[in-house]
Amino acid sequence: MRPVITLLTDFGLEDGYVAAMKAVMLRICPEVLFVDITHTIPPQNVRSGAFVLETVVRDFPAGTVHLAVVDPGVGTERLPIAVKAADSFFVGPDNGLFSWILGKEPNWQVRILADSRFRRPAASSTFHGRDIFAPAAAHLARGVSFQELGPVCRPRIEPWFAIQRERDGLSGQVVHVDRFGNVVTNIHRDHLPEALTRSDYTIQAGPAVIERTVRTYGEAPPSLPVALVGSSGYLEIAVNQGNAAELLGLVEGQPVRVRFRYLDPPR
Amino acid sequence: MRPVITLLTDFGLEDGYVAAMKAVMLRICPEVLFVDITHTIPPQNVRSGAFVLETVVRDFPAGTVHLAVVDPGVGTERLPIAVKAADSFFVGPDNGLFSWILGKEPNWQVRILADSRFRRPAASSTFHGRDIFAPAAAHLARGVSFQELGPVCRPRIEPWFAIQRERDGLSGQVVHVDRFGNVVTNIHRDHLPEALTRSDYTIQAGPAVIERTVRTYGEAPPSLPVALVGSSGYLEIAVNQGNAAELLGLVEGQPVRVRFRYLDPPR
Amino acid sequence: MRPVITLLTDFGLEDGYVAAMKAVMLRICPEVLFVDITHTIPPQNVRSGAFVLETVVRDFPAGTVHLAVVDPGVGTERLPIAVKAADSFFVGPDNGLFSWILGKEPNWQVRILADSRFRRPAASSTFHGRDIFAPAAAHLARGVSFQELGPVCRPRIEPWFAIQRERDGLSGQVVHVDRFGNVVTNIHRDHLPEALTRSDYTIQAGPAVIERTVRTYGEAPPSLPVALVGSSGYLEIAVNQGNAAELLGLVEGQPVRVRFRYLDPPR
Repeated sequence: MRPVITLLTDFGLEDGYVAAMKAVMLRICPEVLFVDITHTIPPQNVRSGAFVLETVVRDFPAGTVHLAVVDPGVGTERLPIAVKAADSFFVGPDNGLFSWILGKEPNWQVRILADSRFRRPAASSTFHGRDIFAPAAAHLARGVSFQELGPVCRPRIEPWFAIQRERDGLSGQVVHVDRFGNVVTNIHRDHLPEALTRSDYTIQAGPAVIERTVRTYGEAPPSLPVALVGSSGYLEIAVNQGNAAELLGLVEGQPVRVRFRYLDPPR
Repeated sequence: MRPVITLLTDFGLEDGYVAAMKAVMLRICPEVLFVDITHTIPPQNVRSGAFVLETVVRDFPAGTVHLAVVDPGVGTERLPIAVKAADSFFVGPDNGLFSWILGKEPNWQVRILADSRFRRPAASSTFHGRDIFAPAAAHLARGVSFQELGPVCRPRIEPWFAIQRERDGLSGQVVHVDRFGNVVTNIHRDHLPEALTRSDYTIQAGPAVIERTVRTYGEAPPSLPVALVGSSGYLEIAVNQGNAAELLGLVEGQPVRVRFRYLDPPR
Repeated sequence: MRPVITLLTDFGLEDGYVAAMKAVMLRICPEVLFVDITHTIPPQNVRSGAFVLETVVRDFPAGTVHLAVVDPGVGTERLPIAVKAADSFFVGPDNGLFSWILGKEPNWQVRILADSRFRRPAASSTFHGRDIFAPAAAHLARGVSFQELGPVCRPRIEPWFAIQRERDGLSGQVVHVDRFGNVVTNIHRDHLPEALTRSDYTIQAGPAVIERTVRTYGEAPPSLPVALVGSSGYLEIAVNQGNAAELLGLVEGQPVRVRFRYLDPPR
């Protein structure tokens, strides 16, 4: 099986940073297949990076190595780590970027990238992506054992994935706005009562109240905000052929409240 | 020969949607080579996607599978299809996205993606790219026969590629504006008399009249709009070191009229 | 070893141009691994393309072929060339795009892409990337000898990499602004006295004077402009969690002057 390494960063596509990481990995693991997840996470937005990672990692083959670098603290005291979870590996800074994975997977191990055999000889203080994370990812991809990377550590887990159950509903937050302006929340299908296609709940997101739920974008009447469970299983707010985030003034981090009209017991 | 799958979508580069499709395909066809055509087709602009596809598909090796998803009607009644034409395969929604291919190739076959063996077990209603189209593309790439995908159907063909011959010229339309602001029409080199490098025709595009034709961008005097046959064989309007679309107020869909000064018989 | 071809262009990501080049190369060298460096060099900005190429090429394995196309003069008299330097190959227009490589590497050879066996049969006058450069790159990648490409020539080398030594410092210029607004100069670590982490020099860049030097972005106090040696070894000006280029009004091409406070002899 060909080793697969995915890349998720906030490096943008204008510079050579992503290519420099791939170059370093190619020297270590020439047979690798790279899959870019995205390089346009909003600069230094660790929460957004953590969520986008969450939406795709389970689709990849077992053994895939996910290299993720959204790293406002590069060169300071935050640790470089590798995570083993969900039949996959994750490499990046210990700053909350793997919170969704660590928060939702029952079993995981975390190691500090301490062994200098798996780093570039003279690591820069500004580009750990190329000098520390990429080499570790490539060594994992070519079969170095997870235990060899360094000592065990306790990772930072941010509560971005957490929702609150309430008497008549649920509270969560906006965690992502996609290219189409669809507003994605951290409330998952599994948190909701069965009745997603019936209009038996309303959603309050920032200043907006959404009364209508649909199964597909196409079902929604034009310009009316609707709620639906998106392709990653999370509740989202959309406007058919429009931009929900702009129309409703919603941004990442805003609270979202789902209120059930009939008190079905939440699962 | 390594299987090749190209991808063309309007998903953008900010989210994990493209990576999710690649992940699904990797599980089915691990030896695949992916080539991204573009993921920044203007959202839901099927015509633009259809044209960009047309400009590149003939350059790829025989057997290439082209996965194209610009799909405003996802989850509604439009059919998921596969097309066999020009020694290649195409997979995507039946909404006109393959109009150029189907309209210009003399021989083609179309099948509905009906066989559940070639879908994800629980297809979502919002992301057919990942759940229906990507698996079908990957199965074709690993050698599943076209006939197995599902029953034959009659595809939707939009007349975007059509031009009208007139007494003293031709009529067509703007079908694409590229990154440099070059305005690309659907009028092909093969529609024009030989005399492309002589100034023996004028072009009327929206409010603009272009009198000067050149062979290369470099030949054009700065800031003067010129016409030339672009690299894909289509007539385009450009301004040397400037943005023709902005300067001339041209957008996709506007009519374009070529008027021959001397009545050479059109080929 | 699998052949590696990198791509750097100003073609953008909206059109099919990059995919057309890859398609042509796949026909010639099916086993190739493509690595995109960037396709969003500012349109026709040869200097910026030359610098981004400089920052990554030494990271790639020996034998890598770098296809670079920023080509305002396409179709005019500038020559198509290939360069052999630094254990790598470079293919593109002879317009200064390889100035950094040619200016810094002691040994190089340059050939004109003259042999028609290594071109598309009917080369267009507008898309040499697809018709001349891509085929040459792919033939090099599959093992065609450098000498076969065409006759030797003397390439164009622009002095963008040059700095001036002064009595109490150095002069250079801004050569790149990255996605985060970090302002990158052509002054390399090797030009500077050891004392980079001590505040023993000031930097004047356009209207701005920077007094503070740091080792990492994280060390800098918020909103204060600082200087540091970036990951590619070049001196850059940054604002922690801010956009230095915008805040200081700096653009590419502006002069940068480093003034040593104590007259350590420059290395």
